[in-house]
Amino acid sequence: MISPIKDLVSLIERITGRKDRAAIRSELKDENPIDIAEAITRVEPDEAAEVLEALPIFQAAEIMVEAPTETVKQIVPLLSDETLAAYLDVLPMDDAIDLSEELEPERFEALLEVIPDEDAEEIRRLMAYDEDAVGRVMTEHFFRVKPEDTMGQVLEDMRLAPQDKYETIHDLFVLNEDGALQGVLSLRRALRLGPDQTAASVMNTDVVTALDTEDQEAAARRMARYGFFALPVVTEAGVMVGVFTGDDAQDILREAETEDVLAIGAVSGDAEPYMSLNVWQLYKRRFPWLLALFAAEYLTGSVMRHYGQNDPSLGIQPLMMFIPLIIGAGGNSGSQVTTTITRALALDEIRGRDTLAVLGKELLVALMIGASLGLVGFLRALAPTPIGWSSGWELSAVVGLALPSIVLWAATVASVLPIGAKKLGIDPAVMSAPFITTFVDATGLIIYFQIALTMLNK
Amino acid sequence: MISPIKDLVSLIERITGRKDRAAIRSELKDENPIDIAEAITRVEPDEAAEVLEALPIFQAAEIMVEAPTETVKQIVPLLSDETLAAYLDVLPMDDAIDLSEELEPERFEALLEVIPDEDAEEIRRLMAYDEDAVGRVMTEHFFRVKPEDTMGQVLEDMRLAPQDKYETIHDLFVLNEDGALQGVLSLRRALRLGPDQTAASVMNTDVVTALDTEDQEAAARRMARYGFFALPVVTEAGVMVGVFTGDDAQDILREAETEDVLAIGAVSGDAEPYMSLNVWQLYKRRFPWLLALFAAEYLTGSVMRHYGQNDPSLGIQPLMMFIPLIIGAGGNSGSQVTTTITRALALDEIRGRDTLAVLGKELLVALMIGASLGLVGFLRALAPTPIGWSSGWELSAVVGLALPSIVLWAATVASVLPIGAKKLGIDPAVMSAPFITTFVDATGLIIYFQIALTMLNK
Repeated sequence: MISPIKDLVSLIERITGRKDRAAIRSELKDENPIDIAEAITRVEPDEAAEVLEALPIFQAAEIMVEAPTETVKQIVPLLSDETLAAYLDVLPMDDAIDLSEELEPERFEALLEVIPDEDAEEIRRLMAYDEDAVGRVMTEHFFRVKPEDTMGQVLEDMRLAPQDKYETIHDLFVLNEDGALQGVLSLRRALRLGPDQTAASVMNTDVVTALDTEDQEAAARRMARYGFFALPVVTEAGVMVGVFTGDDAQDILREAETEDVLAIGAVSGDAEPYMSLNVWQLYKRRFPWLLALFAAEYLTGSVMRHYGQNDPSLGIQPLMMFIPLIIGAGGNSGSQVTTTITRALALDEIRGRDTLAVLGKELLVALMIGASLGLVGFLRALAPTPIGWSSGWELSAVVGLALPSIVLWAATVASVLPIGAKKLGIDPAVMSAPFITTFVDATGLIIYFQIALTMLNK
Repeated sequence: MISPIKDLVSLIERITGRKDRAAIRSELKDENPIDIAEAITRVEPDEAAEVLEALPIFQAAEIMVEAPTETVKQIVPLLSDETLAAYLDVLPMDDAIDLSEELEPERFEALLEVIPDEDAEEIRRLMAYDEDAVGRVMTEHFFRVKPEDTMGQVLEDMRLAPQDKYETIHDLFVLNEDGALQGVLSLRRALRLGPDQTAASVMNTDVVTALDTEDQEAAARRMARYGFFALPVVTEAGVMVGVFTGDDAQDILREAETEDVLAIGAVSGDAEPYMSLNVWQLYKRRFPWLLALFAAEYLTGSVMRHYGQNDPSLGIQPLMMFIPLIIGAGGNSGSQVTTTITRALALDEIRGRDTLAVLGKELLVALMIGASLGLVGFLRALAPTPIGWSSGWELSAVVGLALPSIVLWAATVASVLPIGAKKLGIDPAVMSAPFITTFVDATGLIIYFQIALTMLNK
């Protein structure tokens, strides 16, 4: 069943806090874990933990897997060891490892002691790989076929194998005695063959593989390019050690895309859902870039200063020298906001009823960024430097005041316009960074000149 | 077999032009159609057509499906009717429709007459849907199960059904006599059940579907969100008419992502691979946006003019009024280039050996855009308007010359830096639009001032 997220959030807020586990179980039993995972990012961590402790272990584990990292980080400390150990036990191994990354090392080690040895060993084996290596996200649970197996045997083996023996059945992998990959056979093909044909006689030997130590994103792109559902993972020696499945590959590509999109808008950091990030995290993702761009924009000031001093005929006045700096800061901070919001809208991370929450968050971030930039700008304008820079108290104060005002204005425009466009049924992507930058250029100048008139003409 | 694209391009250039079909067939028989599709975007259309006419029909049809639209458009007119009719016949229907969109309507109608009636009817049925509707890309070839069918029967039916009877076997769809969808059963589950269990007793009745008239991107996002490999497509009345498969959904999402990314950089148009677009097409995707932003940036000039006239104490000189316009045009055109190139690099559409080709293309586009903007800027600066705008011949000429110079410079920086970063092993995404904009701000001003000094001080 798929319910609107806002209904699910209200439902969770209503059924938690009463310590009635049976009620939580029955109300949520038909909801999709992916929807519950999104809903718990919008409730208090203790409410989320109450839901997870109340639900059956399989359902709760699936929710944990789907929830954003930042949300999981907040919830994990509130969960009992029994619950966590049970999760580690039922989760696919790559998801168990993801979850373990949110735990303190001591607590994780303690949990590994209480789950079955076999699972603990598998987790340790996968965790030995680099964080970005394919081995880290592969599953060791795939269907092995011997070259001499007949199709009849293969289908019978599949029927009888325990449920969690293999994660993917799209392809059957033919391995020799040493575990080296000999070929691949699609289940579709296997189903259509006569029961007496052997795997060796029908398998495809021209196999696209991934190396266990290879970068995940590169392997995921290869999988997408050639339209595969999974890639066999082999060691340098050709031994097949696991399968890199399509769902993991898609998640990796989607996160890489988001990171690329944000980078275009000069926002750094991992692809975490917008609503799961707090004001401080948003600030940290944006301010360093903005500061670097701000510093670079001083070059523009130096260029103007140089021409102003050497060529009086150009008529460059002190107030003019800060124009590129001021409108640049407004444009860049506006770009960051519109890129972040547009992406979140495209991924459905922000919905209609979030408008006020988003605006509040963005204005708070803008205040922090504006204050920081204003202080830097003021001090920099004031400081006398070897190339003789000081612009005097008054002009420095104009710059220091104009910066936060314009950053705040840019954030307002850059968050309201894309959300408004979406509500009106216009593609929010047209509220592009250059559009916001241009709009903020003109309006930002009014702010700058008004502040200058007020302060300088006193 | 996967070969480096550049080897494949050299190979194709070598084996074409000799009218030796057998050689082409044998040289390319083990190459992946996706790689060949990329390689033919980089050779002459007549060479590409020669390859397609020479290859076996199935292999050639798959290449046509994977090749970018722009490339197909160039090749289709060069192919014989027999070849095209054969393609239409062997392609999955949604791909056949894609291909048909590249044909002139009369030629397409003529082709429909020569392929089997059943196929022609199916193509007409799907083409009756909106271009963006799910129905347009669904396949009608899925595996239908009756509620009373036993698992034993189902597996036997699958084994005996003709090869092209169904495109996907991941899920089995349970339909009643009227064709209404009753439930879904994964093949994985079916394989593990006893042969006597009926579909009705084991199917999952809580099915996520897509409506045939629904927007493709919305349905694709739903499929990705819930991690499905395919969605059954139903009519308003609940009759199942097809399956929306995961590979089509991924293509749709990837194109939507690319369009979103380009929109962030103010580039409009469909997601076509960079190397398949010519200079004129690149110009058309960028200039309208740039012109709109340029017009909007005149607001900035009006703001400066207003303050310059009313508040002489601010010291705003005529030359200063054009600064935001000039650096804005440089920044915006730089953003377009860096966004386009960064995206193409991320998708591996541009490779190392393309550097010079890319730079040449970008400089040509920049010349065209710069000349257009320069002319508009010159005329606009010169024209007397109701609010008294004319800036005189000399200043207008400075603006008209500075614009193309800066656009050209911005294009150079914005194409060289991301490619250079990639070569040095740095993530090209850090050469973000704001970074390029900031860099072009400072350096663009030098160009502007130098031109002004040369022209005004004469």
